[in-house]
Amino acid sequence: MYELKVGVIGTGAIGRTHIQRLTNQVTGARVTAVSDINQEIAQKIASEYDAKYYEQGEDLIEDPDVEAVVICSWDPTHEKYVLAAIRAGKFVFCEKPLAETAEGCRHIVDAEIASGKHLVQVGFMRRFDMGYRSMKAQLSSGKFGAPLMAHCVHRNATANAQYETKVNVTGTAIHEIDIMRWLMDDDIVAAKIVQPRVSKYVAQGQKDPQIIVLQTASGAIIDVETFMHCQYGYDIQCEIVGEEGTLRLADPTQLSIRRGGKCSFDILQDWRYRFADAYHVEFQSWVDHTKKGIVDGPNAWDGYAAIAVSDACLKSRDTGKWEPVIMDTIPEFYQK
Amino acid sequence: MYELKVGVIGTGAIGRTHIQRLTNQVTGARVTAVSDINQEIAQKIASEYDAKYYEQGEDLIEDPDVEAVVICSWDPTHEKYVLAAIRAGKFVFCEKPLAETAEGCRHIVDAEIASGKHLVQVGFMRRFDMGYRSMKAQLSSGKFGAPLMAHCVHRNATANAQYETKVNVTGTAIHEIDIMRWLMDDDIVAAKIVQPRVSKYVAQGQKDPQIIVLQTASGAIIDVETFMHCQYGYDIQCEIVGEEGTLRLADPTQLSIRRGGKCSFDILQDWRYRFADAYHVEFQSWVDHTKKGIVDGPNAWDGYAAIAVSDACLKSRDTGKWEPVIMDTIPEFYQK
Amino acid sequence: MYELKVGVIGTGAIGRTHIQRLTNQVTGARVTAVSDINQEIAQKIASEYDAKYYEQGEDLIEDPDVEAVVICSWDPTHEKYVLAAIRAGKFVFCEKPLAETAEGCRHIVDAEIASGKHLVQVGFMRRFDMGYRSMKAQLSSGKFGAPLMAHCVHRNATANAQYETKVNVTGTAIHEIDIMRWLMDDDIVAAKIVQPRVSKYVAQGQKDPQIIVLQTASGAIIDVETFMHCQYGYDIQCEIVGEEGTLRLADPTQLSIRRGGKCSFDILQDWRYRFADAYHVEFQSWVDHTKKGIVDGPNAWDGYAAIAVSDACLKSRDTGKWEPVIMDTIPEFYQK
Amino acid sequence: MYELKVGVIGTGAIGRTHIQRLTNQVTGARVTAVSDINQEIAQKIASEYDAKYYEQGEDLIEDPDVEAVVICSWDPTHEKYVLAAIRAGKFVFCEKPLAETAEGCRHIVDAEIASGKHLVQVGFMRRFDMGYRSMKAQLSSGKFGAPLMAHCVHRNATANAQYETKVNVTGTAIHEIDIMRWLMDDDIVAAKIVQPRVSKYVAQGQKDPQIIVLQTASGAIIDVETFMHCQYGYDIQCEIVGEEGTLRLADPTQLSIRRGGKCSFDILQDWRYRFADAYHVEFQSWVDHTKKGIVDGPNAWDGYAAIAVSDACLKSRDTGKWEPVIMDTIPEFYQK
Repeated sequence: MYELKVGVIGTGAIGRTHIQRLTNQVTGARVTAVSDINQEIAQKIASEYDAKYYEQGEDLIEDPDVEAVVICSWDPTHEKYVLAAIRAGKFVFCEKPLAETAEGCRHIVDAEIASGKHLVQVGFMRRFDMGYRSMKAQLSSGKFGAPLMAHCVHRNATANAQYETKVNVTGTAIHEIDIMRWLMDDDIVAAKIVQPRVSKYVAQGQKDPQIIVLQTASGAIIDVETFMHCQYGYDIQCEIVGEEGTLRLADPTQLSIRRGGKCSFDILQDWRYRFADAYHVEFQSWVDHTKKGIVDGPNAWDGYAAIAVSDACLKSRDTGKWEPVIMDTIPEFYQK
Repeated sequence: MYELKVGVIGTGAIGRTHIQRLTNQVTGARVTAVSDINQEIAQKIASEYDAKYYEQGEDLIEDPDVEAVVICSWDPTHEKYVLAAIRAGKFVFCEKPLAETAEGCRHIVDAEIASGKHLVQVGFMRRFDMGYRSMKAQLSSGKFGAPLMAHCVHRNATANAQYETKVNVTGTAIHEIDIMRWLMDDDIVAAKIVQPRVSKYVAQGQKDPQIIVLQTASGAIIDVETFMHCQYGYDIQCEIVGEEGTLRLADPTQLSIRRGGKCSFDILQDWRYRFADAYHVEFQSWVDHTKKGIVDGPNAWDGYAAIAVSDACLKSRDTGKWEPVIMDTIPEFYQK
Repeated sequence: MYELKVGVIGTGAIGRTHIQRLTNQVTGARVTAVSDINQEIAQKIASEYDAKYYEQGEDLIEDPDVEAVVICSWDPTHEKYVLAAIRAGKFVFCEKPLAETAEGCRHIVDAEIASGKHLVQVGFMRRFDMGYRSMKAQLSSGKFGAPLMAHCVHRNATANAQYETKVNVTGTAIHEIDIMRWLMDDDIVAAKIVQPRVSKYVAQGQKDPQIIVLQTASGAIIDVETFMHCQYGYDIQCEIVGEEGTLRLADPTQLSIRRGGKCSFDILQDWRYRFADAYHVEFQSWVDHTKKGIVDGPNAWDGYAAIAVSDACLKSRDTGKWEPVIMDTIPEFYQK
Repeated sequence: MYELKVGVIGTGAIGRTHIQRLTNQVTGARVTAVSDINQEIAQKIASEYDAKYYEQGEDLIEDPDVEAVVICSWDPTHEKYVLAAIRAGKFVFCEKPLAETAEGCRHIVDAEIASGKHLVQVGFMRRFDMGYRSMKAQLSSGKFGAPLMAHCVHRNATANAQYETKVNVTGTAIHEIDIMRWLMDDDIVAAKIVQPRVSKYVAQGQKDPQIIVLQTASGAIIDVETFMHCQYGYDIQCEIVGEEGTLRLADPTQLSIRRGGKCSFDILQDWRYRFADAYHVEFQSWVDHTKKGIVDGPNAWDGYAAIAVSDACLKSRDTGKWEPVIMDTIPEFYQK
């Protein structure tokens, strides 16, 4: 089978996972080049996977042996690498965020439109999770009427030392922002944060949990509990309430245990396990569609919209009010 | 066994249920008198249960053959009958609302304090539901840390023709208002309504569903989805999120069915079935404690607090903002 | 309300529970007399409940102040007391077993037929459990086709010191024997015990768990796992497999807990809690029907049939083979 | 990456699925040759996948461009092809059954031992299912004590026109036979079939459902309900009962739906979906281990044991008795 030659920028934890995935689990792709500012690790990985090493991501992008690019470097570098890939006319998969600001995303959107070709996919892997996909299929059947509300929960057992208040939006609820836009096929037009009592497990000065409330263009209300220090595990919940019924993600579990006076199942402790299948499907789909010259997943406009909503959330933290999502009209280029 | 002689004011649907319950299910009580403005039905019931009939509730209250009073008449009459019972020095169980306004409730509170004796119980039956009671026991154990958030859902299949927008607060969320005060042992200090897109099943000009957000004195945030036209059934959900874990009401179900490609359980269609046991426990407890001269359930202050919170919710509907709960300091008489 | 005057023979643990139940939870009944060989306890209870004390059960039965009799004395005495009650023409509720042998049960059946009146009810409380009742209602709807199989589980955390191998049949599976005859509306015609490896928690020489396999007249096969030392709790499971779908009892639970890496619910530790509601409904129904002069619950023939099946099980333990249930044809008196 | 060159014998439904899987989902393998008696289909597939076509499976096996062989041809041909692969010294994956008779399997076992090298893997894919693997991990932890019983259910919505009574054993329970040997790490020493009433959906003269009871060397009892016409879906259940607790497979589901008075999840209609992940893991593991020269999955001895137990089941159908599993002692070559 023809193997797509992929260059990966960023060989940190996620980068290495993606390199491993593209090599051993996804079919039809081969990692031909890697790049990272941490030269030592990147070179080791390059030799391990029989790939070239580039100090500069831009050089990797220009290598004729790289047909498509995966970006999982430090967030502030996403924008420049995606722009470089567009300039080189190469398909590019960029981990979220597409850029750190809405303006940055807008630059990418403009560059892609100018290039005349869809090239950019953003790493919102939940769109490839079977649960959410079943949910979308059910919603599309019309049997549930219009979606009126959604209740989401996004909990982590514990956050790392770098935890900051804004992470509940920028690193966490951003997944719900994207998946809700996609599930409801609706734009988010306003956002508000409601701040509950802070858990004793949160570092002084930081705020967790947070409840993020979103309003869509059609008037649906989405509430998202984000709780980065819930202690008990990694737990993603989602219920969509339609006019004629509700849809809820089932808990991921293989085994029901009766022992010591309890009937229980184990809760996953880590997002890696929760969406392992989704990552796999996402990359396989990206490789397959890239070979066909198509972008089929979340695109640059989705990346831009997510940041625009995220900005409104962050502003609401400061103002304590509903904040409108400030966002351009969708260009014809991205309309379905 | 000695039988408490109970007079029931109001022989509508709920009144008849309570008369039947006191007679046939609760032990140690007997309905000795009934009263209702609908003379025909009330007399029929009086004769059926071998009880006296009174045209005026006040006369029933003064009958020496009535030791304790149950009020389930038209809402606007609650206040005067409760006051009359306090004047008569008789124990009184009043269906919610205790009075239609916070001022009305305050009159009752003042009268009870002046009487020097606890006499009033309000019909918040959920405090007697085994699920909520288990939840409270677990919370009290300390194993879940402080409660930070609660997510509640209160759905009815369909509302009757009299449905009005305010019912989501006054007839519906009022149950969550009381049970949350009790579960969290905390006062609600502010309220806000978020209005989602309205279901197509709702009459022109009315608003349903509604999301009611409450803040407690300790900073916990409670969100309550109220949806009176959800089509599929009567559905009460509640999850409390503590610093170290969460507690969620289980769905009430007896049977799991596999048939026609689905594994399912039936959802109750009516609140009567959902809280049938709670009503039973509530009245048995009221009879038992009344005989001992004690008020053990939700008291006049709880009735007052519920209306005060309800008022803040209704005001938030008009202003679109967080509204503080306007409420007096708890008198020593009601402190635990 | 008119109160049925009940005499209770046997004031051990179960007897006291029934006396308390008849007095405080069931309406329309009063315990007027008690009897027990343990004179001290019985007299204490008599004085506590303001009832007469009789040394001899037969004397209690003949007391004109006793309208109906509850028998929860030592198993070997059941037969003689039931026969005495029939002779006295009084309604009698007898805890299982109706008699210790099929012959003993047959004497009761014959005496009842000779008396010309239905008087005897046997304490198979599961027929009053809402789960089993829902199951029967669903089966009767015809939507599940003919029942072909049933899988039952009956587990106790631990057995007491008197535990003997035969208890898995006589004290345990006997409940499944009765409930299955009732649910399937079918007689059990053959039985076989399959002996698994014995748990290390079982006393030397005794056998637990045991799998009891039953065949009905229509050919349905019922397997019952009985496990008296399962360590983790009291657990009753039942699935009926019909031609077009299956019905399974839901686990009894009020609360779902997420904590410490697990999502769990508590398993009951004791049969008293599992069937508390069923006991209540059973006795209320017995009192109500006795007042109307009707036996509506499991009758003497059901008590006889259960022992006949139990005998076949015990015989199969010895022979290692399928053993036919040796049982007379149902007399017209008991046909529906 | 180096790609293992695989020849596939049998291009029926399962064969085509495996070819597709090896090509598009499994990494590190390539289908280089196919063979089938249906020349037309096989040639079409050969050209589609750019593989050679062989009329004779033996010729495919001898092709130097075939490093490893997958056998999914007609059952009666399995034995000869596996023997040919062993003669050729090539790794071979054979769909169950390894051979149609225990004698046939024994020939393979003897040939493999004579070859001095482990080459044969049998297609018992459940060993690669995450649910069963979690179960085995838990059992191995020792926290559940010794396994005493297992309750298994294996239901299909409907069987095809060729359905025969023996299929419940040879095509159905054979999966439970293997997975139970593996989970319990124990041999099955005796078997018995209990025949329930036959469903009205079963063709005249055939028998379904069937309950297959198995006894292991350590005395554990396994009951397997096989029901090929259960109407409602494909349903695999398994509970293992240990001395200190139980383990049960969770239902595979992504979505919980509330609509029309019911809370439900969809039951899979087809085994292909139920074990899709297991098939993937199985083949990836086979390819990976074959490259390392290791057999890591169910081996020839497991294939032999499954047929020996299956034979005892079939014999029990005729005799109506417990039948011992007639099986040789495990050769040193297969001991762990």
